[in-house]
Amino acid sequence: MPNTLPPDSVGLVTPQVMHCTEPLTLASGKILDEYQLVYETYGELNANRSNAVLVCHALSGSHHAAGYHRMEDRKPGWWDNYIGPGKAIDTNHFFVVCPNNLGGCHGSTGPTSINPATGEPWGPDFPKVRVRDWVHTQARLADYLGIEQWAAVVGGSLGGMQVTRWALEYPERLRHAVVIASAMKLSAQNIAFNETARQAIMADPNFHGGRYLAHDTHPKSGLAVARMIGHITYLSDHAMGEKFGRELRSGSFTPGNDEPVEFQVESYLRYQGDVFANTFDANSYILMTRALDYFDLAREYDHDPVAAFSHARCRFFVVSFSTDWRFPASRSREMVNALMGAQQPVTYVEIESSYGHDAFLLPNERYRRAFTLYMARIAREMQS
Amino acid sequence: MPNTLPPDSVGLVTPQVMHCTEPLTLASGKILDEYQLVYETYGELNANRSNAVLVCHALSGSHHAAGYHRMEDRKPGWWDNYIGPGKAIDTNHFFVVCPNNLGGCHGSTGPTSINPATGEPWGPDFPKVRVRDWVHTQARLADYLGIEQWAAVVGGSLGGMQVTRWALEYPERLRHAVVIASAMKLSAQNIAFNETARQAIMADPNFHGGRYLAHDTHPKSGLAVARMIGHITYLSDHAMGEKFGRELRSGSFTPGNDEPVEFQVESYLRYQGDVFANTFDANSYILMTRALDYFDLAREYDHDPVAAFSHARCRFFVVSFSTDWRFPASRSREMVNALMGAQQPVTYVEIESSYGHDAFLLPNERYRRAFTLYMARIAREMQS
Repeated sequence: MPNTLPPDSVGLVTPQVMHCTEPLTLASGKILDEYQLVYETYGELNANRSNAVLVCHALSGSHHAAGYHRMEDRKPGWWDNYIGPGKAIDTNHFFVVCPNNLGGCHGSTGPTSINPATGEPWGPDFPKVRVRDWVHTQARLADYLGIEQWAAVVGGSLGGMQVTRWALEYPERLRHAVVIASAMKLSAQNIAFNETARQAIMADPNFHGGRYLAHDTHPKSGLAVARMIGHITYLSDHAMGEKFGRELRSGSFTPGNDEPVEFQVESYLRYQGDVFANTFDANSYILMTRALDYFDLAREYDHDPVAAFSHARCRFFVVSFSTDWRFPASRSREMVNALMGAQQPVTYVEIESSYGHDAFLLPNERYRRAFTLYMARIAREMQS
Repeated sequence: MPNTLPPDSVGLVTPQVMHCTEPLTLASGKILDEYQLVYETYGELNANRSNAVLVCHALSGSHHAAGYHRMEDRKPGWWDNYIGPGKAIDTNHFFVVCPNNLGGCHGSTGPTSINPATGEPWGPDFPKVRVRDWVHTQARLADYLGIEQWAAVVGGSLGGMQVTRWALEYPERLRHAVVIASAMKLSAQNIAFNETARQAIMADPNFHGGRYLAHDTHPKSGLAVARMIGHITYLSDHAMGEKFGRELRSGSFTPGNDEPVEFQVESYLRYQGDVFANTFDANSYILMTRALDYFDLAREYDHDPVAAFSHARCRFFVVSFSTDWRFPASRSREMVNALMGAQQPVTYVEIESSYGHDAFLLPNERYRRAFTLYMARIAREMQS
């Protein structure tokens, strides 16, 4: 953080909490008697409550999407590039709401919370959560905040899955769905990467079948490997090449040298893995990747995405990135085709970027312009 | 294995051993006083010793490239699709030699061998091995077998790296270099996957800093995760989709069902990981992936592949596969461009296949024909 806040920042923000005592029946059939969601808001809700935008976070995200918690913070929220005064999601126009998802580990009820039935942390006993459950809790948050209809529901990656589920679960409660770098379901390869990450966590002897808190430990090594696997899939081959190439961090290839050689990409990945392992809960990671794997937008519509989208009542804005190989442009095009088949209004932009899946978080001029223009159109609609 | 051997099989084969007491100075400067290589041969060496073909194996391969060890074997050697009477590497014409690489775990001297200095297994103290060292030991094997010049040196993936190194280290000792699904060096992404796999192994508490044999154990969980990571990168997204889709192995998505759901791809990967972990040595895996990472054909030619290839004296046959994303066709084209820049004779074929990197091992009609035609040309040259 600089000494002064940047002028296009939402500034210092304080997380808020919704405590919900109305029991929630999950897709799994399990019932949560009560739970809380931590969330942040940026901007002001207008008088007729028509300018609210819901931002849904992805696998490793949180409610802290923009601004700073303290003047000392080195980094702003995860989507600060696109949320703030004058930015794509312009807080001069919109009231932005971003909750931490149920089952997460940043303050919303999840595996590290106390199970009221036992007085101990839920751990691996926390019920399975599906994308649909997140949407239901987000709808309750909307009720709580007095928001009958979102101007837009917006999200990238796993966040985009929440957006499309919103369009089908509560078709009357959103006017626009902004779906970025996402897909209607994971491919077998996506699932395979997630499963390998879970296996790395479960193989860690500190995992203890998920009851690591009772053993006063945490499967950090396994979680770090899981994050490394994920991280590689978020970056394009090209981006990694640009960022690291085959540059060495230590050692040399001098003939006759038996010193260990280490490439920069290795230490970077290990560092990223370690940082993540110190801030994320392993059971949450397993729960969230399972929600990703299980998500299948058209499952209960006879696996027909056209039939699924025929229930939507909002306009769609779909964005993909050219070098994203985790959710390639082809997956977005499938979604766009299904939307067109269902005669839904859809705008689609494919953005050139060399940064892979991560591009949805990063500065990119064409992405910024397209995103800004689309959101500005929503803002204009509110005024007319 | 069927009760009778297939007519196009090399049949029952018995591994042989070369014990070498001449000290070997490795690229690292370390000296191995003695070592052995286990190898197999198929076909007959002709009178003027002109029909020998060296087959170099990849990361998880071995000397057992074709045929069967016992009538009970369920599977033949790893490249049986392409080695045998009437096959691409036709044992009616060629004398095929396939050694297990130094540092491996299938019989050649490696980390599980006894370190004569200590009387204990080498384990993590086994010296670092580079692709170049493999080539040197293979040259000694050629000397031992009385082969002055190979008709061809052939290999896929890491095997292909040995082939190109052969062309530069011993330009007069091979007439043809057959380089399949390979590259002149790994990309940062390739290295990142390998490093993540190594981290998974090292994070296993049974790894004990590589001294697991002394603890009478083996880091099977870590090695299984490493293999799972590798396995995903060998298959194309498309191939995984075709093979598994999102088919379930257990559980169901019935609403209200809290049973665990498991996708077929998950159990397949876990099974493959477990099988591998039971048959491969962790230190060998680390050593071999390091050799892969360190390989850089043009490093000592000022990073100029044209300058590197200007030292070659053989003809090149380069093959790539359309959906291989570990060693994409673009990496083979870089090699072909460098060869053309160095005015070397090169034939390049890009094969349509949906099976990713694994395609180099699998039946494919166009690949079979191209490979067969090229090898037949080599056989004709021997007769003329």
